[in-house]
Amino acid sequence: MAHEKYGTCIAACNDCAMACSHCAAACLHEDDVKMMAACIALDMDCAAICQLAAAAMARDSANAPAICRLCAEICTACGTECAKHSHEHCQACAAACKQCAQACREMAA
Amino acid sequence: MAHEKYGTCIAACNDCAMACSHCAAACLHEDDVKMMAACIALDMDCAAICQLAAAAMARDSANAPAICRLCAEICTACGTECAKHSHEHCQACAAACKQCAQACREMAA
Amino acid sequence: MAHEKYGTCIAACNDCAMACSHCAAACLHEDDVKMMAACIALDMDCAAICQLAAAAMARDSANAPAICRLCAEICTACGTECAKHSHEHCQACAAACKQCAQACREMAA
Amino acid sequence: MAHEKYGTCIAACNDCAMACSHCAAACLHEDDVKMMAACIALDMDCAAICQLAAAAMARDSANAPAICRLCAEICTACGTECAKHSHEHCQACAAACKQCAQACREMAA
Repeated sequence: MAHEKYGTCIAACNDCAMACSHCAAACLHEDDVKMMAACIALDMDCAAICQLAAAAMARDSANAPAICRLCAEICTACGTECAKHSHEHCQACAAACKQCAQACREMAA
Repeated sequence: MAHEKYGTCIAACNDCAMACSHCAAACLHEDDVKMMAACIALDMDCAAICQLAAAAMARDSANAPAICRLCAEICTACGTECAKHSHEHCQACAAACKQCAQACREMAA
Repeated sequence: MAHEKYGTCIAACNDCAMACSHCAAACLHEDDVKMMAACIALDMDCAAICQLAAAAMARDSANAPAICRLCAEICTACGTECAKHSHEHCQACAAACKQCAQACREMAA
Repeated sequence: MAHEKYGTCIAACNDCAMACSHCAAACLHEDDVKMMAACIALDMDCAAICQLAAAAMARDSANAPAICRLCAEICTACGTECAKHSHEHCQACAAACKQCAQACREMAA
């Protein structure tokens, strides 16, 4: 079953989507929100593709590997940006992005 | 933080979204797919609102309670339909819907 | 067919989703981005529910009226916030939200 | 502005998302639903990526070209399957997929 087959990657995508959604909203409350603009924009992309990837894997979609390949790319871009900022939500998001990128690359291989 | 505040409900929504997505796709492979049409249609609605609710909670959105109220309604409708079918994925989905409906009602209260 | 039955409301939801997505990203490039935080947060909610509502109507979902009722609420909240800001993208978004809220209310009635 | 820059491609993605969502639901009401399983599954993938692509373009996202490249692939796969079926919704979906694949390829070039 898709659930079990892709279990690790589905969990990583859901975790990353939540971390990105949280980071986007938390960045909006920071004093230096202007500096966080790129982070917020990438968080939005990353949250969206992670949720789409998780759902596609749960449906055992034939397109899941291609979707996960793109998801890995976007996670890497988002995680690289998040890692530049010391806010706890940015660091947590960077870690979730890194883990999700790795899980997606392995899934798509 | 939104993550921790809504942790239980976010997890229930993500679990339910995955169970519904899996159930929709698995129903399409059943011999009696015609009998599963209502189940598949509700699975699509439920997967979508559960993912939206999870993301809204992760963003600590002011609209999260209203979204969770609707999510509870759709989960209940989906779970009621899924429970009628003996396929393992339908029974698992019914259980996930029930748990998510409960978590969303408590969150919105 | 769902397409034709809900044609006006589907178009309003898609237009509003695009206006909200555009407004969120454009707000991030404004000098006074800190002042736009509430606008960006509501744009994210509104874009998400509008896309979900459009898809639910296209599927002729039994849940479409309830979804449109919530969509109208969120559009109203988003449009009220956007209307406070003189940026062109905020004013365009406020207008799209108002039109979508109206279309969703009529659809759900 | 993203709206205008990507106007044609955004419209094609939204049209395709609606055609796919409608086709998925309409297939579930056909007598030969078992024969439509692959069509329904691809419709779900295609509707999801088209909505994600439209929103990413509306946000003028740096990831929009990569997303549109994947969207073109999935539209092509979906349109090829839909074209095999004579139902009006399948033929309409095939046409929308073909147009969206073309618009996405041009956007990403």
